[in-house]
Amino acid sequence: MPENVLPRGFRFGGVTCGIKASGRPDLSLIVCDQPVAAAGVYTTNQIVAAPVTLCKSRTPSSSIRAVITNSGNANACTGEQGALNAAEMCRLVATKIGASDEQVLVMSTGIIGKPLPMERIKAGIDSVGNKLGDSIDDFQAAASAILTTDKGPKTAHREVKLGGVTVRLSAMAKGAGMIAPNMATMLAVVMTDAAIAPEMLKELLTEAADLSFNRVSVDGHTSTNDTLLALASGESGVEITAEHKAAFAEVMNDICTQLARELVSDGEGAQHVMKIHVTGAKDDHDANGIAKAIGESPLVKTAMTGGDPNWGRIVSAAGYAGFPIQPNLTTLEVCGTKIFENGAPLPFEAAALSRTMKATPEVDIELTVGDGPGEATRWASDLTCEYVRFNSEYTT
Amino acid sequence: MPENVLPRGFRFGGVTCGIKASGRPDLSLIVCDQPVAAAGVYTTNQIVAAPVTLCKSRTPSSSIRAVITNSGNANACTGEQGALNAAEMCRLVATKIGASDEQVLVMSTGIIGKPLPMERIKAGIDSVGNKLGDSIDDFQAAASAILTTDKGPKTAHREVKLGGVTVRLSAMAKGAGMIAPNMATMLAVVMTDAAIAPEMLKELLTEAADLSFNRVSVDGHTSTNDTLLALASGESGVEITAEHKAAFAEVMNDICTQLARELVSDGEGAQHVMKIHVTGAKDDHDANGIAKAIGESPLVKTAMTGGDPNWGRIVSAAGYAGFPIQPNLTTLEVCGTKIFENGAPLPFEAAALSRTMKATPEVDIELTVGDGPGEATRWASDLTCEYVRFNSEYTT
Repeated sequence: MPENVLPRGFRFGGVTCGIKASGRPDLSLIVCDQPVAAAGVYTTNQIVAAPVTLCKSRTPSSSIRAVITNSGNANACTGEQGALNAAEMCRLVATKIGASDEQVLVMSTGIIGKPLPMERIKAGIDSVGNKLGDSIDDFQAAASAILTTDKGPKTAHREVKLGGVTVRLSAMAKGAGMIAPNMATMLAVVMTDAAIAPEMLKELLTEAADLSFNRVSVDGHTSTNDTLLALASGESGVEITAEHKAAFAEVMNDICTQLARELVSDGEGAQHVMKIHVTGAKDDHDANGIAKAIGESPLVKTAMTGGDPNWGRIVSAAGYAGFPIQPNLTTLEVCGTKIFENGAPLPFEAAALSRTMKATPEVDIELTVGDGPGEATRWASDLTCEYVRFNSEYTT
Repeated sequence: MPENVLPRGFRFGGVTCGIKASGRPDLSLIVCDQPVAAAGVYTTNQIVAAPVTLCKSRTPSSSIRAVITNSGNANACTGEQGALNAAEMCRLVATKIGASDEQVLVMSTGIIGKPLPMERIKAGIDSVGNKLGDSIDDFQAAASAILTTDKGPKTAHREVKLGGVTVRLSAMAKGAGMIAPNMATMLAVVMTDAAIAPEMLKELLTEAADLSFNRVSVDGHTSTNDTLLALASGESGVEITAEHKAAFAEVMNDICTQLARELVSDGEGAQHVMKIHVTGAKDDHDANGIAKAIGESPLVKTAMTGGDPNWGRIVSAAGYAGFPIQPNLTTLEVCGTKIFENGAPLPFEAAALSRTMKATPEVDIELTVGDGPGEATRWASDLTCEYVRFNSEYTT
C-alpha cells in the first residue's frame, strides 16, 4: 500500500500502555493537524459507556483535534468515576497536543465495570503523543491498538476524483470479537481529506452506518460502547456540496461496508459468513428486518455451520420476523441454487449444494418474500462450538 | 399416579405406525366420549403448516370429538397435498369413531417439506382406534407418541374443588427439542372435565399461553406448527361461569406453566434454565420484552452455560431490548446475590456465586429496571456446544 493513500491532515500512533495483561497494544491516537469536522453514530443501547456519552456531547463539531482510543477496558458501568476518567483522557491529550478538552473525542473497548488504570493511560498518552506520524505504518499502529480479540487490524482505503481532484478516505475498525469476559463492541473511525460541513458529515455517516455496520450480526447483542466516528480535514481542498454529495456518499458507504463485512467474517468462532439478500418485501425497512431475523436465528446459523441447505429454517425465520410476507410467493436460492419456489420445496442436489456451502466463505442467501419493492442486504456469521466455548469457558 | 387423576370423558391411545425411522411411537389419539368444547392457540409464524390451518378453521368449537397427532413429519410446506392429507387424517379418525370430519382436530410435528406417509397413517389410525382406554397408561401412551427429540413425555395433572365438586385437568406436551433436520415445535393439549363455553375456553387458554408457553425461549425460533389445544368435556358437572372463572384460570395457568418450564429444561442441549424475573418496567408488556431479550441473548445464554455471573451481559441485554429502562435504577440479583445496584457493580464473591450457578438447575435472575409497575417472569435455556452440534452436524 503506497503511503500517499492516506488522507492528508492526520497523524497516527499506537502503543502498549499496560491496560491489557497480554502486553498487546492498547492505546491509539489520531491527531488532526488543524481542527476538523467530526460526526458520530453511537450504540442504541440504553446502557451507555462513559466515552460514548462524552462523544455524543461533542459531536457533530467543526473543531475536533484528536481521537484517543483505549482497548482492554470499556469504561462502561463505571459510574461518575468513569465519566471523570473519560474526560481526563481527553484533557491529557489536549494538553499534550495543545488543544482544548472539547476538541478531543474518546473511545474505549474491553472489560466493563472496572475503573480505568489512569496512571498507565496517562503515561501512554505521553508516549503515543511522541510517536505520531503520517505513514501507513503509523496508521497500522493506531489500527492495531484498538483491537481486542480481533484476529488482526481491519482497515480500508479509498480514493475518489471529485471535480478533477483526488479525495482520500481511510478507515479503521475493531470488531465483533468478544472481550473476555464481557461483550462485543465495534469501534470505527473514517477519515477523509474532503471538506464537509459537520451536519452533512453526520447525515452521510448515519446513512453509511445504516447500510453497513447496522447490517451485520454476529450474535445480535448490542454493545454499550459501539461508536463510529468520521473526521473530515478538508486538506484535499475539495468541498462536499450538493454537486459531489452523491459520489462521496457512495465511497463512504463502500468503505464502511468493507469494514462491516470484515467484522462479520472475523466474528467469534465464525467459519462462514451469510450474505442475506431479501427482495419483494413491503419496503426496505421490512426487508432489513426479515434479513435480520434470518441472520440472527440460531437454527439458521447452525445450518450454515454444518453446510446444510435447510430451507425450512430460513423460510420459517422469515415467517416469524414480524413483517408481512407472502408465503405463496416466497422463493429461496442458496449459493445460486433455487431450492424453494412460491411456497413449495424444489428437488435439488442436496449433497452437492452442501459441499458448495461448506467450501465457500460467504454463503449467498437470496430470498424473495413477495412482490413488493422492498430490498435489503445483510451479513451474518454462523454459530459454532468455538463461539459457545469462547463465551462460556470463563468464570468471573 | 392414581388413575382417577384423569378428567372424565376422554380416552387415549398411542402407537407406532412407521413415520419415524427409529420405530418409536409416532401416532397419538385422544377421543372424547361426547362432543366437547375446544379452543386453540397457534403459532404466530406466517409460514403455517397444514394441520394448523385446519385447526384454526375448526376452533373454537362446541362439538370436537377427537385430536389426532403424528410425530416425525410436520406436514409443513407441503402445499395442497399437505392440506388434503391433514383433512384426510381427520376423516379417517371420524370414520373410525363415528363422528363427522369437522369434529376432529389434527397436529403434526417433525421434518418439514415431505409428504406424509398416508398409507402408514391410515393403518395406524385403525390400530390406535382399537387401543383406546382411560387409564393412566393409555394417557402416557398418547403423550409418548407426540414426542420427537424430547428426553421423555411431559405431562401434568391438577385437581381443583369448585363449589364443592372436584374438577380435573390433565395435559401433555412435546417440546422445544429439535426435529433433525428441521425445527422446534411445541404441541400441547389440556383436557378438563369442567364445562366451559368455547369462547371462554379460548379466552382462558390464550391467557394461560401468554403466561406460560409464550414465556419460554430455547432458541427464539418460532415454529410453523406450534399448537396448544384445550378440550372441556363437562363430565364433572361443574360449569365454569363468572363464579369459578378466576379459580379455574389459576389452575389452567399453573398446569401450562409446569409444562412450559419442562419444555425449557428439556431444550436441546440445555444444561441450565434461567428464571428471569423483571420488575420496575413501564408495564408488564415491557417487562416481558426485556426478559425475552435477556433469555435470547447468546451471550447471556453462554454465560449461564459457564456459570458466569456476568452482570454486564444481562444488564446490556436489558438495555437493547427496545423498551425504556432507567439505568440509574437498574439492580440485578443472581441466585439471591445482589451484584449490580442502581447502575453500578457491587463487590461479590464471584467464585462462590459461580459454583452456585453451576450447581443449580434453575438460575434465578432478578432484574429491576426502574420504578415502574411492570413485571414479568420468563424461562430460558442456556446455549451449549451440544445445541450447536445437534443442529449443525446434519447434512441434507
